[in-house]
Amino acid sequence: MALIVQKYGGTSVADADRIKDVARRIAATRDEGNQVVVVISAMGDTTDRLIELAYQMAREPSERELDVLLSTGEIVSSTLLAMTLRDMGYAAISLSGAQAGIHTDSAHSRARILEVESKRVIKELETGNIVIVAGFQGVTGEMDVTTLGRGGSDTTAVALAASLGAEVCQKYTDVEGIYTADPRLVPEARLLSDIGYEEMLEMAGYGARVVHLRAVELGELYNIPILVASSFTQKPGTLIHGGASMEVRNKVTGIAHDLDIAKITVVGVPDRPGIAAAIFQPLAKAGINVDTVVQNASIDGVTDLTFTMAKRDLSEAMRVIEPIAKLIKARECISDSRVGKVSVIGTGIQSHPGYAARMFTALSERGVNIQMISTSEIRITCIIEEAGVEDAVRALHRAFELETGE
Amino acid sequence: MALIVQKYGGTSVADADRIKDVARRIAATRDEGNQVVVVISAMGDTTDRLIELAYQMAREPSERELDVLLSTGEIVSSTLLAMTLRDMGYAAISLSGAQAGIHTDSAHSRARILEVESKRVIKELETGNIVIVAGFQGVTGEMDVTTLGRGGSDTTAVALAASLGAEVCQKYTDVEGIYTADPRLVPEARLLSDIGYEEMLEMAGYGARVVHLRAVELGELYNIPILVASSFTQKPGTLIHGGASMEVRNKVTGIAHDLDIAKITVVGVPDRPGIAAAIFQPLAKAGINVDTVVQNASIDGVTDLTFTMAKRDLSEAMRVIEPIAKLIKARECISDSRVGKVSVIGTGIQSHPGYAARMFTALSERGVNIQMISTSEIRITCIIEEAGVEDAVRALHRAFELETGE
Repeated sequence: MALIVQKYGGTSVADADRIKDVARRIAATRDEGNQVVVVISAMGDTTDRLIELAYQMAREPSERELDVLLSTGEIVSSTLLAMTLRDMGYAAISLSGAQAGIHTDSAHSRARILEVESKRVIKELETGNIVIVAGFQGVTGEMDVTTLGRGGSDTTAVALAASLGAEVCQKYTDVEGIYTADPRLVPEARLLSDIGYEEMLEMAGYGARVVHLRAVELGELYNIPILVASSFTQKPGTLIHGGASMEVRNKVTGIAHDLDIAKITVVGVPDRPGIAAAIFQPLAKAGINVDTVVQNASIDGVTDLTFTMAKRDLSEAMRVIEPIAKLIKARECISDSRVGKVSVIGTGIQSHPGYAARMFTALSERGVNIQMISTSEIRITCIIEEAGVEDAVRALHRAFELETGE
Repeated sequence: MALIVQKYGGTSVADADRIKDVARRIAATRDEGNQVVVVISAMGDTTDRLIELAYQMAREPSERELDVLLSTGEIVSSTLLAMTLRDMGYAAISLSGAQAGIHTDSAHSRARILEVESKRVIKELETGNIVIVAGFQGVTGEMDVTTLGRGGSDTTAVALAASLGAEVCQKYTDVEGIYTADPRLVPEARLLSDIGYEEMLEMAGYGARVVHLRAVELGELYNIPILVASSFTQKPGTLIHGGASMEVRNKVTGIAHDLDIAKITVVGVPDRPGIAAAIFQPLAKAGINVDTVVQNASIDGVTDLTFTMAKRDLSEAMRVIEPIAKLIKARECISDSRVGKVSVIGTGIQSHPGYAARMFTALSERGVNIQMISTSEIRITCIIEEAGVEDAVRALHRAFELETGE
C-alpha cells in the first residue's frame, strides 16, 4: 500500500460533473489499495470572481482580508469533493489548510510554508479516510489564514507529499505533461515520459505554466517525484524526478522560451570591485527579479553590463538604475523591451561544446541575431529579438531532432 | 465608551451596495465613540445556493462537510465588510467563528454553543479594530467547523454580547421591530418600543421570524438587551429586555399565532401515575417537539390527553403513539392537522381573569370554537380550527385595543 498525493487544478473541478469525474479517479486510486491525499484548487473562475467582488468593495482590498476571502474557494471545492466521494461509498473528509497543518509566515497573498504539521492528516488516513485538503492556503502562528500566491496549490501538494513521505505527488491538469517545447508553438513537440528537476526548472516560462517552479524546487529539495498528467485522459504523463541528473544522460531534453523579458545595458562601466553590487542591490531592494546577467571582459578598464527582467519591471528598473549609473560614472543606460529568450535544456549540455555550436548555427541559419548568451550546467540561453523567438524555438526543435523518440 | 454588538442578516448584505450601507451604519456607531463587534450572515441567497450545490454532489450530503461548505458564506460576507470599512478609513478585521472562539458541541448542522473564548476579539477591540465575526458557525474541540442551525447568527451575536459584557445586542433586519401582532395579518398592528424576554418568547411563531427564540433565551439568561430594528431605516426599533417582567405592568402586549401545528388526542386514557411519561418519553426520543399539552380532570378513572406539535411531525408522532396507546389500554388516538394556535401575551395576564374572559368572548363573537385552552403566567392560548386563526388574530387585536398607544 502506497501513500499518494494527488493535486487537481481549477479546470479539473470547474463544475459538478467534473468534480464527479475527479472523484472517480480518486476512487480508482483508492481501489488499487493506496492511501490517498488530494489537494484541490478552487472551482473554475471562482478565485477571479472573488477578487472582482473584493475590488467592488475597496479600491485596495486589505491583503489579510483578501486571503481569507480567497481561501473560501478551495474550501468549497474540497467539501464538494468529499461529499461526492462519500456519496460513492468512500470514507472521505475535507480539511482546510489550517486543519491540514500548513503553517506559513504572515506574508499575506504570497506566504511561504514554514512547516507542515501533518498529525491530523495522518490520523484521518489511519481511520481509512481519503483526505481532501484545500490547496493554496495556510495559517500563521496567530491562526490567521494566508494564501501562498502563484503556484500555491502545487506547492501545498508537494509540501504535503514531503511531510507525509508520499511515494509520488501526482498533478492532474488540462495538459498531458511536459513537452520538448511549447506545443502551441511547435506542433510536433513530443511528450516527455520523464524529466529531471533541474531541467524542469530551466524550462521556466513554458514549464511554469504546467507546474509552478516553487513546487518543483520543493520536490527537488525533498526528492518527491512529481507526475504531471491530464485529468481528462488516461495517458501516463511526465514524471519529474531526481534520476535524470544522477545518471548524466548528455542529451537535449527540450527547448524553452520566454517572451516576457526586457533588457537593460549599462554602457561604459568602470571595471572595479563593488560595481555589480552597487547596481544589483538597489534593484533587489525595489523587488525587481533580475534574470540573466552578462558582463563582458573589460577593455581599457571599462565594460558593459547587461541584464534582463520581466517586461512589467522595466520602467521601475530604469528609474532605479539611472541615478546609480551616473554615480558610478557609467556612460549611459540603454533599455530594450522587444527581446525574448530561447534556451536549449539538457543534462550535461555544457560539457559538450557541440550543443552550443549546433544551437548558434541553427539560429544563424534562420537569420537570428544573438544579443546575449548565458549558459549553465544544463542550459544554453540566447537573448534575441522578440519577433524571432517563435521561429527560433521551432528551428531549434528541428535542429536537435526532438520530434523523434528519446 | 460602550461596547455594542450588532448583527446584520442576509438581506442587509445581499449585494455590494447594501454591504456599503451596512458599513456606513457601523462607522456611525464607531464615530459615536463605541467599540463595535459585528456579527454577519451570508449574502442574500448564498446559503441556499451552496445547499443546492451540495445536493448536486450527493443524495444526502455529509453533515460535517455541509457545515464546512455553508460556513464559507458568512466568511465571504465578513471579509467583504471588513475590506469596505478599511477602505472607508476604519480599522477593521474579520474573524471566523473559530477565530472568534465560538466553541460548540459536535452536533453538525445544529450545534450548540458550549463556550465563547473571546480573547482574540478582546485583543482586536483593544487595538482599535471594529471586529466582524462570521455568524452561524463555530468550532469543535477537534477544530472542526460546525453550524448552529436555525437562528444561528442571532445566537452568535447574543452569545458574543454576553461573553464580552456588551451594553446591548442590536439586531438589524428587514422589519422595523416587534409588532402587537403579525403586521401581514393585522395592518393596524402597532410597533412596540419594548417587550420583555418572556413575552417575546411567548410571541413564538410570529416573533421567531424576527429574532430566533434561542437568541432571546440566551439574552434572558445573561440579561443582554436585544434591540430589533430595520437596517433600511433610521427608526428606533423594539428593545427586548428584562425590565418588563420586573415591574408587572398588567397589560396585553400582543397577539401571537401559529398555523404550523397539528393535534393528537389520546382518548380514554386510564388515569394512573406514569401514563404521561409513557406517552411523552418515546415522543422525545423520536425528536418530536411537543408544544401545548392539555389533560382534563378524569371521570370514572379515565381521561383524555391532547397535545400539539409541528405539522411535519404529525405522522411520525402517530406512528410512535399508536402502539403505546394500545399498551396503556387507551381507547383510541385521533389526529387533526387542520388546527392553529392564537395567544394573548402580556405580563401578569393570568392574575387578571378579566383578560381570559375578554379573549373567549371575542372569539365566541366571531363564531370561533375553542378546542383547547392552555395558560401561563403571561399567556392565554387557544387551539382553534386553522381556517379561523387569521380572523381570530384580528378580532383579538381589536378586542384588546392594541392599535392605540401603550
